[in-house]
Amino acid sequence: MSQGNLQIIDCPPKHLEDYHQFTPEIVDEVQTLANHFRGLKVAHVNATALGGGVAEILRCLVPLQNDAGLQSSWYVIPPDDAFFEVTKQIHNFLQGKEGALTPEQRQIYIEYNRFLGALLSKIDTDVLIIHDPQPAAALTFLTGAKPKLALWRCHIDTSTPNRSVWDFLLPFLKNFDHYVFTMAEYTNSAFPQDKISLITPHIDPLSPKNIPMNKEEAKNYLTRFGINPSQPLITQISRFDPWKDPKGVIDAYRLAKKEFPDLQLAMVAQMATDDPEGVRIYEEVKSYAKSEAGIFLFTNLPDNDLAVNAFQTASDIILQKSIREGFGLTVTEAMWKGAVVVGGSVGGIKLQIQDGVNGFLVNSPSEAAARVILLLKNPQLKSQLSQAARRQVLDNFLMPHKFLQYLQLFSKLNLSLLLPQPPNLPLPFRVLPP
Amino acid sequence: MSQGNLQIIDCPPKHLEDYHQFTPEIVDEVQTLANHFRGLKVAHVNATALGGGVAEILRCLVPLQNDAGLQSSWYVIPPDDAFFEVTKQIHNFLQGKEGALTPEQRQIYIEYNRFLGALLSKIDTDVLIIHDPQPAAALTFLTGAKPKLALWRCHIDTSTPNRSVWDFLLPFLKNFDHYVFTMAEYTNSAFPQDKISLITPHIDPLSPKNIPMNKEEAKNYLTRFGINPSQPLITQISRFDPWKDPKGVIDAYRLAKKEFPDLQLAMVAQMATDDPEGVRIYEEVKSYAKSEAGIFLFTNLPDNDLAVNAFQTASDIILQKSIREGFGLTVTEAMWKGAVVVGGSVGGIKLQIQDGVNGFLVNSPSEAAARVILLLKNPQLKSQLSQAARRQVLDNFLMPHKFLQYLQLFSKLNLSLLLPQPPNLPLPFRVLPP
Repeated sequence: MSQGNLQIIDCPPKHLEDYHQFTPEIVDEVQTLANHFRGLKVAHVNATALGGGVAEILRCLVPLQNDAGLQSSWYVIPPDDAFFEVTKQIHNFLQGKEGALTPEQRQIYIEYNRFLGALLSKIDTDVLIIHDPQPAAALTFLTGAKPKLALWRCHIDTSTPNRSVWDFLLPFLKNFDHYVFTMAEYTNSAFPQDKISLITPHIDPLSPKNIPMNKEEAKNYLTRFGINPSQPLITQISRFDPWKDPKGVIDAYRLAKKEFPDLQLAMVAQMATDDPEGVRIYEEVKSYAKSEAGIFLFTNLPDNDLAVNAFQTASDIILQKSIREGFGLTVTEAMWKGAVVVGGSVGGIKLQIQDGVNGFLVNSPSEAAARVILLLKNPQLKSQLSQAARRQVLDNFLMPHKFLQYLQLFSKLNLSLLLPQPPNLPLPFRVLPP
Repeated sequence: MSQGNLQIIDCPPKHLEDYHQFTPEIVDEVQTLANHFRGLKVAHVNATALGGGVAEILRCLVPLQNDAGLQSSWYVIPPDDAFFEVTKQIHNFLQGKEGALTPEQRQIYIEYNRFLGALLSKIDTDVLIIHDPQPAAALTFLTGAKPKLALWRCHIDTSTPNRSVWDFLLPFLKNFDHYVFTMAEYTNSAFPQDKISLITPHIDPLSPKNIPMNKEEAKNYLTRFGINPSQPLITQISRFDPWKDPKGVIDAYRLAKKEFPDLQLAMVAQMATDDPEGVRIYEEVKSYAKSEAGIFLFTNLPDNDLAVNAFQTASDIILQKSIREGFGLTVTEAMWKGAVVVGGSVGGIKLQIQDGVNGFLVNSPSEAAARVILLLKNPQLKSQLSQAARRQVLDNFLMPHKFLQYLQLFSKLNLSLLLPQPPNLPLPFRVLPP
């Protein structure tokens, strides 16, 4: 039934030394610890090479792992429409959607993963990291020897899944040696605590979206979109999706505008043109905005990464008024640029923003408006929060941290003992707390 | 009148060693030669940090020069609407437009460049490379010592400029020590031959637009845009602009379709939404295409660089049916991916395509159609041309070649003699033929 082959993804090279300027201690620690895993073969497997946070992360992490001496590869599973239709359903079910998979859908999932298991069996690897539910059952169908470590990296919330779908998946998931989730709230009690590690998403400070941009240049760049650089600007960057509360953003803007009449609002979205739901909500938001002067709605800006960088750099305040949120990488990106973020008090936004310390957490449009007004009135407060915001990302959410966390996990699992010990290293190597 | 400051542009680091895999000899030569220029201060000055071929090139060349030990920087002039309005006119005049600058426009150009001269005087540099006409007069207004080498890098055709505008600019241009043009046809007889060097644009094989993409993954990516991966596909990537002959492209497609009824045509453009001319021509082309099945028109695709990469990788044939063309970097990008390009026999396309050897040069839609049909009928011929196309770029048009050409120019001008000689180098250093 299924056909095609694994696609190995070539990434432009990255060099750890280039990250030294940002987090010297972390990079040094990565380099020291990576020496214990020189030659360790790591294979990442996921469902897509393009688009989405996972692909963005692997595009940086895999070349960095190679730069540090690991043998890291990234494989994308061959596309299959029927299979992807089923896994889209599974995704929704895991987030709590009611209903059940049909016997035919289960069959499609199993057969594709059986086929995938045969493909994965040809990979010679020490560590197999399978991302998300799509290829997760393939581990069960490996035909040869199992890797030394099989790890499920789950990026979605599995805490309250649809029961019947979870019961279907769990036997496959149980075969993994270890599990990595974004945060504690996303884990499922079916997995023993000692087999779970938490690693958040991270951003690449050297990607076009995050490379430092001069604030004046950024403001100038936005003039092409009609933004007036001499008037204050607040921006929300996110899909048009009810969970991002786009109407609440407009409400907050209108409240703040009463005090700052020349305030501008930009709402910037990447939108799949084949996503009818997204287009419908965009139209709703557009009609809600009533062509009001000062409100700018953008979809699919040219040079998206640079445009997002410019909006995050040039805005006085970034909103992320989500009602529900995974991690919220746009919050990380904005804080990294020293933007003060006023974010919904949900999900991963709470991991990033400490209310009143490096941004603000809010629960309603009026709260959001109050924080916007407070910040516009107090440039010094804004400047303090801005510095703390950048510090927060510098200390926790740059790609070298992620690399280090994986190395620490490998250490904890005693993986380096499985390799021939390099002769020139001080032994016993550092034992990290679990 | 004018205000603002030079903006220094920070680029993500690039490493020469990463290019060794493509052109080992060239990289080795760059490294050897660069040793003679260790510490040489090079300042590039241009008008924009974002968008356009020059910015794309500097974003790679400047970090590579730094990686090799030069001290290279990139400065962008402060934006000024009135000035940019004038330089847009100058650009058109240089390409032959009739008319003249008003006294006021001349005044704006001179005053802004006088202001810029003062800004540039603060830069401590050995080599000053000014790109294109906008900041070209600033050299005349430097208040301090002149750099050891002042170089005008002109990317546009100055062979038959508007006489009165040229007479206005020439005294400023004459102050440069040396001139770099894209090709001989673009030079102006006002400059002595021995002061002219030719350096074409080049592509970065490690940018997201040019990183190798698996052909199957690329085909799969295009399905999201409605392209059927099992039917043949021809693509033209360029603005909607009469000089790119978009209607001729559709004519060629319709002729070829008579022999290959399932042939698909994609026309992919980045389009500034504030460019009324572009929007008008797009509408014309759309109406010319008459919603015909198999014709796909795209403007501002999400993830543009990846999308362009996917189209260039997945297409059976790339068209670039220009009637007039600068260099044609999209041709270089496509040939680098092993696409067979059927291109108009004009401008820089002729520098890249050798007719029948690594692509085809054509002069009409019917010729283009004949070549498309020939290629679709002869997979072996297509495969031969494809290999030769990639070879052409590998041998001539990758960024390390450009770096080497600049170094050779610095050598020719005996620039390294102006630096303290590094003690550990064999002397006399290599003398390169002029």
